[in-house]
Amino acid sequence: MDLPRKDPEYSRLLSPRGVAVVGASTDLARLGSQPVKLLTEFGFAGKVYPVNPKYSQIGGLTCYPDVLSVPKPCDVAIIGTSSQHVASTIRQCGQAGIPFAIIFTAGFREVGGDGVRLEQELKQAIAESGVRAVGPNCIGIMNVPQRAYMGFGPGFSNPKLRDGPVAFVSQSGGFAFSVVGLVDAQGIGFRYIVSGGNEADLSTLDFLEHFIDRDDIEVVVSYMEGVSDGRRLRSIGRKALEKRKPILIWKAGNSDIGRAAATSHTASMTADYTLYRAAFREGGFIQVQDADDLADYIRAFTGRKLPTGNRIGLLTTSGGSGVLMADCCDDAGLTLPPFQPGTLDRLRSIMPAFSTFANPADLTAQLSGQYALFNQGLGIVVDDPTVDQVAIRYGAVEGGKSLLWAQGLTEVAAKTDKPVLVSWGRPPDLDAPSLRHLEAHRVPWFVTPLRTARAAGVLSQFSAKVSTLRPADFTRPISPRPLSLPADGTALGEHRSKACLAAYGIPVGREVFIPGEALAGTASLELRFPVAVKVESPDIPHKTEAGAVALGVPDMSAVKTTAQALFEAARRYKPQARIDGIVVAEMQSGLETIIGGVVDPYFGPVVMFGIGGVTTELLKEVSYRFAPFDTQTAREMVEELRLAPLFRGYRGRPPLDITALADALARLSCLLADHADRIAEIDVNPLFVRAEGEGVAAADALIVTRAVQGPSS
Amino acid sequence: MDLPRKDPEYSRLLSPRGVAVVGASTDLARLGSQPVKLLTEFGFAGKVYPVNPKYSQIGGLTCYPDVLSVPKPCDVAIIGTSSQHVASTIRQCGQAGIPFAIIFTAGFREVGGDGVRLEQELKQAIAESGVRAVGPNCIGIMNVPQRAYMGFGPGFSNPKLRDGPVAFVSQSGGFAFSVVGLVDAQGIGFRYIVSGGNEADLSTLDFLEHFIDRDDIEVVVSYMEGVSDGRRLRSIGRKALEKRKPILIWKAGNSDIGRAAATSHTASMTADYTLYRAAFREGGFIQVQDADDLADYIRAFTGRKLPTGNRIGLLTTSGGSGVLMADCCDDAGLTLPPFQPGTLDRLRSIMPAFSTFANPADLTAQLSGQYALFNQGLGIVVDDPTVDQVAIRYGAVEGGKSLLWAQGLTEVAAKTDKPVLVSWGRPPDLDAPSLRHLEAHRVPWFVTPLRTARAAGVLSQFSAKVSTLRPADFTRPISPRPLSLPADGTALGEHRSKACLAAYGIPVGREVFIPGEALAGTASLELRFPVAVKVESPDIPHKTEAGAVALGVPDMSAVKTTAQALFEAARRYKPQARIDGIVVAEMQSGLETIIGGVVDPYFGPVVMFGIGGVTTELLKEVSYRFAPFDTQTAREMVEELRLAPLFRGYRGRPPLDITALADALARLSCLLADHADRIAEIDVNPLFVRAEGEGVAAADALIVTRAVQGPSS
Repeated sequence: MDLPRKDPEYSRLLSPRGVAVVGASTDLARLGSQPVKLLTEFGFAGKVYPVNPKYSQIGGLTCYPDVLSVPKPCDVAIIGTSSQHVASTIRQCGQAGIPFAIIFTAGFREVGGDGVRLEQELKQAIAESGVRAVGPNCIGIMNVPQRAYMGFGPGFSNPKLRDGPVAFVSQSGGFAFSVVGLVDAQGIGFRYIVSGGNEADLSTLDFLEHFIDRDDIEVVVSYMEGVSDGRRLRSIGRKALEKRKPILIWKAGNSDIGRAAATSHTASMTADYTLYRAAFREGGFIQVQDADDLADYIRAFTGRKLPTGNRIGLLTTSGGSGVLMADCCDDAGLTLPPFQPGTLDRLRSIMPAFSTFANPADLTAQLSGQYALFNQGLGIVVDDPTVDQVAIRYGAVEGGKSLLWAQGLTEVAAKTDKPVLVSWGRPPDLDAPSLRHLEAHRVPWFVTPLRTARAAGVLSQFSAKVSTLRPADFTRPISPRPLSLPADGTALGEHRSKACLAAYGIPVGREVFIPGEALAGTASLELRFPVAVKVESPDIPHKTEAGAVALGVPDMSAVKTTAQALFEAARRYKPQARIDGIVVAEMQSGLETIIGGVVDPYFGPVVMFGIGGVTTELLKEVSYRFAPFDTQTAREMVEELRLAPLFRGYRGRPPLDITALADALARLSCLLADHADRIAEIDVNPLFVRAEGEGVAAADALIVTRAVQGPSS
Repeated sequence: MDLPRKDPEYSRLLSPRGVAVVGASTDLARLGSQPVKLLTEFGFAGKVYPVNPKYSQIGGLTCYPDVLSVPKPCDVAIIGTSSQHVASTIRQCGQAGIPFAIIFTAGFREVGGDGVRLEQELKQAIAESGVRAVGPNCIGIMNVPQRAYMGFGPGFSNPKLRDGPVAFVSQSGGFAFSVVGLVDAQGIGFRYIVSGGNEADLSTLDFLEHFIDRDDIEVVVSYMEGVSDGRRLRSIGRKALEKRKPILIWKAGNSDIGRAAATSHTASMTADYTLYRAAFREGGFIQVQDADDLADYIRAFTGRKLPTGNRIGLLTTSGGSGVLMADCCDDAGLTLPPFQPGTLDRLRSIMPAFSTFANPADLTAQLSGQYALFNQGLGIVVDDPTVDQVAIRYGAVEGGKSLLWAQGLTEVAAKTDKPVLVSWGRPPDLDAPSLRHLEAHRVPWFVTPLRTARAAGVLSQFSAKVSTLRPADFTRPISPRPLSLPADGTALGEHRSKACLAAYGIPVGREVFIPGEALAGTASLELRFPVAVKVESPDIPHKTEAGAVALGVPDMSAVKTTAQALFEAARRYKPQARIDGIVVAEMQSGLETIIGGVVDPYFGPVVMFGIGGVTTELLKEVSYRFAPFDTQTAREMVEELRLAPLFRGYRGRPPLDITALADALARLSCLLADHADRIAEIDVNPLFVRAEGEGVAAADALIVTRAVQGPSS
């Protein structure tokens, strides 16, 4: 049982005064010894204490027989001993008052078998000693500016890694440092890099949350294969928006094959990628797919300006790049409004005659070298109230003029709250004075029109999330209601499932349940004929497949003969099925939709909405939200789908009752959330949505329950 | 009128023996003079002849008063004179026997007004002189290995551009050379680079076709905003497949805003992007979106190996990169089959115990430095008959060992026809001996797992196109039939439209046309009631909107009363409409599909297929093929849609008559192609597709015609 623990004092881990390297040997190339070399040679200002009873000195440093004999203060013990000895070393650290351990050692949970037991022992030692641990099976932690390189492998071999207000938490150490190298080569630095390993104690989520809170961090990056607490991931995403700090998230293990590989490689929990995407969408996450977009988005966000809308102005000296950038902006969800008449007048009054002043504006290659004039044009475009940010491409300056151009440009940028993005267009020379000047003034630059447009799109996307963030509390459409659910974890038949919906105020069509034995004696029903007749059985969740449904039954006499035929079909389909009777329901019409939900082991209750049976299934035109939520969120679920125009009165059809639909969705979300411990799945298929003011009706429903558990352990 | 002309002798243009620079001045920085400097200083072996009556010498070279006085042989005249003098200079070139001109001068069609007239005069001079011209408004041509830098601007300033078996034809000169620079920085060279400008004579398509034919070119690249002859684009795409040479196509001007910008910037014709994509899909085109994928795909294809299927084997020493690469391969349309038992046995016998031998295989960081063992593993995976190509990631070697690893790797690669791709993982040092060795042996390498996977996907995609290329001739389902189409270019009413379909053997539902005056006297109809009743009018193409349709009319008496009501509705909707009578049609059922077609001014007749009215419209789930085509192509149109499973008997429903549907599509394609000069659009909506063996039926149809033209000019 994991008890909630006090937040560790992370600064001691990230900026240690002393570091013990347990299991170091005189062969400094060995992985457990590498930190001795790295911490002494790369400029780390803290103390380094090799620990190994076999040696008195390692790498010119005093070597201590055990952690108890290490001088104080010592904030971190790096542990590279064999897996059998890790737990006892942790306990010793506890006795020695060392608050943190970084465990390189592999051979725990990730190898199965004995490793699982060792990890369990390790967790116990961690809990009992009070030591907070990173790993095991991690490659270390790095504080870049302080050169606290507490790790091993090629990722730690560069003593000149750049610093930047960015933290990186990764579930794959090797890959993370490969990415750090690639991004560093593009001029982007990190401040803290953490490889979490098996996360026996401190997790990716712990570090994400800490970095969101840290004042010296502006952007948080995470390579993630899966987390065990999806709800916490969501709350961290919310916090990121509140603090206006993006989490650039590189999610892997998404495809079936990738997921299988992720499970074998780390021991990450991986819920369906769909749910991660739902969590990323609602929180302050921006997904990245490769080192280049990671570098670009870091650069964009460390520019410290967010656009207040999705309108961009483009200014180029090459028509081709303007065309391309316009396409790319369109793809990135940005719009290019025409400039205002005043802007056009100001541009025309100073620019060459053949210029195009539409957006994108093409000032033509005649502006080569005329950098001051170009910057003047930029100032005019930036002033235009119809644009929320501006991207430029001005490839025509070389050599010394390039710096003058950059200086003029940063002056214009300094006068506006709008992001000014530069599309560079040449292989970047990071030492060129012009680029260094842009960097120093935090004017973001990007190599190609596509990359520029994508970065602009991401700024706009994050800004929209920040500005539409709603209060965490919401108005429930209904207070919690008791439901009668079987204790044994079976499925409910249609009639009982619908009764649960009805308890939460979700409209179901008018229907009557007739127990099998009462059928013969039922003379009439207060229903509008023709009707649908369906077998009620907890054991036949897919009634149509079983031939246990008849539609359009004209009268009561036909109901009786039909019922017998359905009973026979149901028995043929599943001889052991418990058959309770029949449901006789009025026929429904309207737009066919599906609403449903699952209780995911990682993310909890999630509600799903789709339109049209076949469309939902084959085209995956579905939206998801975490339950519970209010009707506004429910409306967004509907609006998100490309078929949403159907609700607004498409092609002369009447508008549909989206208000009733949103209400039903919000109620379903409360039902699911209130009973998440007892419900596994809900499927309301179809839910008919009628014309505006005429409501909705669930025509079929299925609730799969979960068996009652003992007290949660 | 453009007459077909003999193919020019392009080698004279690309490898000229002498180049005249007309309009050069002693200021060698001026754009028209830059070639004098470039051709004399960068190693060009041919002669350079400045032409300007004002000077006797320019840049130390004899300057000639006009092109007639230039010594022979002179193969190219570069023209940078003012726009008024270009046509006359071209005529002089003709007299001087100079076969080619490269025209830098701007101020033609792209500026409108007078420029349009000047371009017309230029075209005439070109036609009459026999001189073949590139431009006007272009920035030049480059033969990289021969240093024939016949252009101006920063793109021509690098005398050390790499050579490679790649040609680049671009509709944006400035942008193209920016891309050349970016790609060159990644170690990729071009052999010929052409900026086509306004394409008054030689076009992008001319150069594409020439480069596909050239033996020294393996990959052709094109930046394209639009072409005027879509059909020729398609035939070039076909040729690319026949010659197994990919055309990497960077298409811009695709979004509405990009298209508008493209039109103002060059003068490119831009058909709808949908049609370009249809042409790219069927031909040897691979679309690129940025400089990085361009570089990667060039590298992949110049590896000279194509996989014979879409199965890939992954071999890594880092689990994280394996997971990620698996995801990326999945996205790229590749599959990762499990290795064969024999492969697993061979791997297990030599690899460390903690390795994962699933696909992706993770040999773990224990293989750091053990490059020979890694390469041995690679050999085993390459031998596995279940994989068509192999991608590896082995980031663990440094320094001298890196070359030994690369040497072992190229030995393995040399023994197989399967592509072996290397995911590099560090910032690449192009001068590193290991990378140079891979380059020299044409083993493609890529910086990240994503880029590696995408390149592998593209190889597989191109290979599939090559292997499924079908003969250009096809079996028509029906020979051309005459149609009765109005000469004035109006739309046909439903009944007449259906008669055209019927003439091509496309099934239409049983129906009767009753002229308005005959309605009262019609006592009975040989139709299955209930029926649909619709107004027949060439002036009301959208009958439902007009309220001119009634469904489910039960008997003949109701038909008559209904008809009167519909006539009134139609007259209210459009008082001037010509109303011919009514169509009485049997009600149809089945899966609702849409088939239709347009005759595009650039691409000619194109057929469209979609499923379900609303789905087709809102979700753009539509496939396109150029007409005419056979039933196999028609089947592919259906299979391409994500809703295609509906035809195979989805969820217990009966399979549908895809044979009849494919036949109808192929017949429609013939109808459209045979009458492309007279038909603008066809819309058959809905076409009902019934169960297998029961055929299809057009329930409504609309043909919009084109007025008869004079003889084509």
